Amino acid sequence: MKLNVGLVGGTGYTGVELLRLLAPHPNVALRCITSRKDAGTPVVDFFPSLRGHPALDPLIFCTPDEARLTECDVVFFATPHGVAMSQAETLLAAGTKMIDLAADFRLHDPAEFERWYKMPHACPHLLKEAVYGLPEVNRNAIRQARIIGNPGCYPTAVQLGFLPLLEAGVINPDTLIADCKSGVSGAGRVAELSKIFPEVNDNFAAYGIAGHRHHPETEQGLRRIAGQPVQLTFTPHLVPMIRGILATLYATLTDEFADVQALFEQRYADEPFVDVLPAGRLPETRSVRASNMVRIAVARRPHGVVTVLVVEDNLVKGAAGQAVQNMNLMFGLSETTGLTALPVSP
Amino acid sequence: MKLNVGLVGGTGYTGVELLRLLAPHPNVALRCITSRKDAGTPVVDFFPSLRGHPALDPLIFCTPDEARLTECDVVFFATPHGVAMSQAETLLAAGTKMIDLAADFRLHDPAEFERWYKMPHACPHLLKEAVYGLPEVNRNAIRQARIIGNPGCYPTAVQLGFLPLLEAGVINPDTLIADCKSGVSGAGRVAELSKIFPEVNDNFAAYGIAGHRHHPETEQGLRRIAGQPVQLTFTPHLVPMIRGILATLYATLTDEFADVQALFEQRYADEPFVDVLPAGRLPETRSVRASNMVRIAVARRPHGVVTVLVVEDNLVKGAAGQAVQNMNLMFGLSETTGLTALPVSP
Amino acid sequence: MKLNVGLVGGTGYTGVELLRLLAPHPNVALRCITSRKDAGTPVVDFFPSLRGHPALDPLIFCTPDEARLTECDVVFFATPHGVAMSQAETLLAAGTKMIDLAADFRLHDPAEFERWYKMPHACPHLLKEAVYGLPEVNRNAIRQARIIGNPGCYPTAVQLGFLPLLEAGVINPDTLIADCKSGVSGAGRVAELSKIFPEVNDNFAAYGIAGHRHHPETEQGLRRIAGQPVQLTFTPHLVPMIRGILATLYATLTDEFADVQALFEQRYADEPFVDVLPAGRLPETRSVRASNMVRIAVARRPHGVVTVLVVEDNLVKGAAGQAVQNMNLMFGLSETTGLTALPVSP
Amino acid sequence: MKLNVGLVGGTGYTGVELLRLLAPHPNVALRCITSRKDAGTPVVDFFPSLRGHPALDPLIFCTPDEARLTECDVVFFATPHGVAMSQAETLLAAGTKMIDLAADFRLHDPAEFERWYKMPHACPHLLKEAVYGLPEVNRNAIRQARIIGNPGCYPTAVQLGFLPLLEAGVINPDTLIADCKSGVSGAGRVAELSKIFPEVNDNFAAYGIAGHRHHPETEQGLRRIAGQPVQLTFTPHLVPMIRGILATLYATLTDEFADVQALFEQRYADEPFVDVLPAGRLPETRSVRASNMVRIAVARRPHGVVTVLVVEDNLVKGAAGQAVQNMNLMFGLSETTGLTALPVSP
Repeated sequence: MKLNVGLVGGTGYTGVELLRLLAPHPNVALRCITSRKDAGTPVVDFFPSLRGHPALDPLIFCTPDEARLTECDVVFFATPHGVAMSQAETLLAAGTKMIDLAADFRLHDPAEFERWYKMPHACPHLLKEAVYGLPEVNRNAIRQARIIGNPGCYPTAVQLGFLPLLEAGVINPDTLIADCKSGVSGAGRVAELSKIFPEVNDNFAAYGIAGHRHHPETEQGLRRIAGQPVQLTFTPHLVPMIRGILATLYATLTDEFADVQALFEQRYADEPFVDVLPAGRLPETRSVRASNMVRIAVARRPHGVVTVLVVEDNLVKGAAGQAVQNMNLMFGLSETTGLTALPVSP
Repeated sequence: MKLNVGLVGGTGYTGVELLRLLAPHPNVALRCITSRKDAGTPVVDFFPSLRGHPALDPLIFCTPDEARLTECDVVFFATPHGVAMSQAETLLAAGTKMIDLAADFRLHDPAEFERWYKMPHACPHLLKEAVYGLPEVNRNAIRQARIIGNPGCYPTAVQLGFLPLLEAGVINPDTLIADCKSGVSGAGRVAELSKIFPEVNDNFAAYGIAGHRHHPETEQGLRRIAGQPVQLTFTPHLVPMIRGILATLYATLTDEFADVQALFEQRYADEPFVDVLPAGRLPETRSVRASNMVRIAVARRPHGVVTVLVVEDNLVKGAAGQAVQNMNLMFGLSETTGLTALPVSP
Repeated sequence: MKLNVGLVGGTGYTGVELLRLLAPHPNVALRCITSRKDAGTPVVDFFPSLRGHPALDPLIFCTPDEARLTECDVVFFATPHGVAMSQAETLLAAGTKMIDLAADFRLHDPAEFERWYKMPHACPHLLKEAVYGLPEVNRNAIRQARIIGNPGCYPTAVQLGFLPLLEAGVINPDTLIADCKSGVSGAGRVAELSKIFPEVNDNFAAYGIAGHRHHPETEQGLRRIAGQPVQLTFTPHLVPMIRGILATLYATLTDEFADVQALFEQRYADEPFVDVLPAGRLPETRSVRASNMVRIAVARRPHGVVTVLVVEDNLVKGAAGQAVQNMNLMFGLSETTGLTALPVSP
Repeated sequence: MKLNVGLVGGTGYTGVELLRLLAPHPNVALRCITSRKDAGTPVVDFFPSLRGHPALDPLIFCTPDEARLTECDVVFFATPHGVAMSQAETLLAAGTKMIDLAADFRLHDPAEFERWYKMPHACPHLLKEAVYGLPEVNRNAIRQARIIGNPGCYPTAVQLGFLPLLEAGVINPDTLIADCKSGVSGAGRVAELSKIFPEVNDNFAAYGIAGHRHHPETEQGLRRIAGQPVQLTFTPHLVPMIRGILATLYATLTDEFADVQALFEQRYADEPFVDVLPAGRLPETRSVRASNMVRIAVARRPHGVVTVLVVEDNLVKGAAGQAVQNMNLMFGLSETTGLTALPVSP
């Protein structure tokens, strides 16, 4: 089976990562890639790393009109926030499924979307139908979904880290801290002074502590998992590296006898992309570089604190890889198809 | 006035940083530098960056015997743990003061020293006399001291970050979290596989969460500041950068009306090397690169949490610079002498 | 068809890269991996990035005795120089083919081997039979070979860069300059002070200009290609990056009308792993990261000089990838099998 | 003596580096800093690294009108090309000297300026008077100068590297090659996509080989030194580091008995900022980080080739530091005043 696949946007880092993963995918036929601004330009002129691949060499950015997206089985949106929702009704009416890597379909409450993204939601009635694409939580719903809100990079790491503890009810949900560190590709392929090499290299800083858009998305997910309100303090930091997120999570244990190592191992025993490390080992971001794998360690600390350490590649499990995982589920393919390449290390 | 200064050890990063700071210091005459292993080698053969300086070009590593350290006014120890304490009695008897950049004189309790450093303390009776060299806490005691235990890099950042909150009694001392990130020079100039470039670059990880030697030192300092026991969860991480520490600190406010910004500004108003940023700004490690300055931001978070962000250069305020600051105090010099160079940025 | 494959050595960077490429190779069954020192240790304990792969999770380092290498169809040597040649006769006698990623079978002249590697050659009579594994030059010979001397990383880039010019006879072979720049993984996974992060990062330097082992190998290859003696000045440099080589080559044109762009395009038109960029574009190392592709640009400069720029991933086309390419040729597989993954960028 | 100093421009990397060097300079009173766009903004809001310095804390960007530059003894231009020449006549008429860190006064031929910088020269009659600010060549002229064209970063390294060989006439001036590598700060503090961290880090590439503005400047200088035409092939590369240039120079020796090591040592014996390394040692960029020092190694290669390796900090000796050195000379100060800080390493 070959799915007809369209890609809207594709000049950013999630776009090129989708191309890297979709081009060799055995069940994918890349039909079109749109960029209004760069219509007519071969994709490989933008991304010389893709030169020479038979599916990518002939690919040319086209306008949305030329793209005939409604003829696709599924369309990925690697666009700024607001694009996917504007095309949702047309695509769904044509029977085309959607996977949005931006935030249009992540938050269930349109008012919350509006507050954080400063625009009205174009199709609030579809928010109910949209499925939050975190397979470890929503696998069955994803299989039935027509619209996927693909999770943000930080929220993926933080939710997978707190999940076994919240489900088991062994931590106090009012004292959650997520001290997160991300490589610079998470900020996108945009020409900003604060992202040029001499500003970022040999440097480390926190940012966005007054409020980050991934906060409400993460709290929404944790709330659902916990089945009750949660209180999360979220501090993102920028690491002078290209890819990778490490989330260092802190919570207060309410059950002093909880075997947290066993909780994680059992919860993730059958997950193809979550690797619980043996007790005593700590994860490094490079151990998942360029792969869809998440690695997790959990450790009891003195004074009743539990620490969870989660690493992912923000462009793969935190974006394009999880999107392909969702596509696989939506179309009844093996969940790991096209996602089995080993991490690149060193 | 020129002090006769000796340096024991000096082939590591704190050693070369001391040389960088001491060579142009107007009140310092560098008398000797010891390295048993490298006796006879010119210092500039090790550190070409020092070539051409009139005080350093002629400097040659000598054996401890040749060094005649007892003729010095002050001796810095940039050595592994255990060296300074073995020479303390001889030096003090000769009237020579000591500044140890290792851990021999940081912990007041010899049993605790023994537990963490796996060696008996050579002169427990001197531990009482030794002064913990954190000028923002112990300035007057440092002025009178014969022995300084120069603080570790992480403990400096964490103590300065919690200090105003603990002194004012506005946080719960049982819920302190220090999520710390350090550049690789903090691990020393040692040939370890885990420190080579391909293992460290484009990578991020936590380490030492089962127990780090800076933990008891930090807790001891915080306990003193608070005047009561504290409970600290300390998680160090390795950043792919050369220099710099960022400590991200979390605590629970007990006084919901506390003006934390004002607390910090007032506490550090007269400190020459602590810069409290205006509300809303966040510190970056590069803003203190190669300088003795610490920069701090404090922010109220939702749910009664307060976050403090502290940056320092681990080799300067976290090691060699603070040692020079202590020397200045011990000998009645202006505290900032030799330490006024601006940070190097970018 | 599944080949029985053995790996001798495997705790270095070429070893883990071979595992990354061989594990998903459809015609490979990994039979054993040896490391005398680490016998008994699971491979994934060394390289957590490999955790979770069905072919690697059960793999355990074994001693050479346990390995039963003579039952393998082919054995890769990712070992220090000198190991492969000591086992060659035994393996060949058993009908096992060999691919040596070290230098034992690269130089044809045993005296030259001895001069550069400071050891006598163990089987000089096999040097004649061994084939230098650069498929773009020796494809047919590789198909018939029992022993492959897999090229060094620098020599691969330099030979592929000068090849079309020397074959066409349009440059003076007495004036060749190769100014080469390599990422740090090229120096191996060894604990050396000069390779630790604070020594390498934010730094750039040349090394080895008094004589580098890749010099005689490169000259030998260029001499063969040119069919006459060549004079090469070779200057390697260390770049603060993990992977990648850029070779900047200079030569004097002897034919002022030579269409150098066409020469390169024609010569490499059918090569699956050599990509000649369009005139005016320059290659970046990241455009081949983690892939077996080489990208080349050629440019006429003023004053009759021609410059060639070649990029490769030193661990793939410069080591493990080229070794797999050679294996594919030796066993009649499609040359690109297992090597088609796209580069990882950013 | 305190000079009244003005700075035009100052939001770029050469600007902040000038502030770092000028603020503690004992003979400098910083009178004003202009930025039309940022008038009214405190300088430390742009550059938090400068916070806390008594000369910089009160400094506020002002408009050119407010600046009253004609009351200054000397004005530095850290501006885009074209600004300094537009103000030259006014300043000179008022008796104010000028040091331009851009290219307005580097090329002696207005036609060449126009060809490379795509604008007519505003005051071609002043080009004759302007002195090229390379003290190792033009020290006496600099002492008398009213206008300094401060050399570019690459030209400084390349000229100092070829200088002793060309002056001694021991190389063929028709075969010069300069293979140069620069840190990213050399490209300025500008928001360009090609300079953001994920595009630059773990990457290496050449650029600008079709023609770089530093080429005519360098050839002009070499021609003057040689007293005859020269032919230079110049290839710049971008290194994933913040600061530093390494120039690897190649030339053909015409005198096979020339003692090149002695030539360099003699030529630079009295130069305060040129350090000729002992034979056999190679320079690293970090050995000059944040300092005005240049370090040089020269080596004979096989086949009559000589290689020179030159390192400098592109923001110091390659820009701001050399500008201060020129100021010192112009006003009869000791040449090294304010420039003696040791390099920062690691």
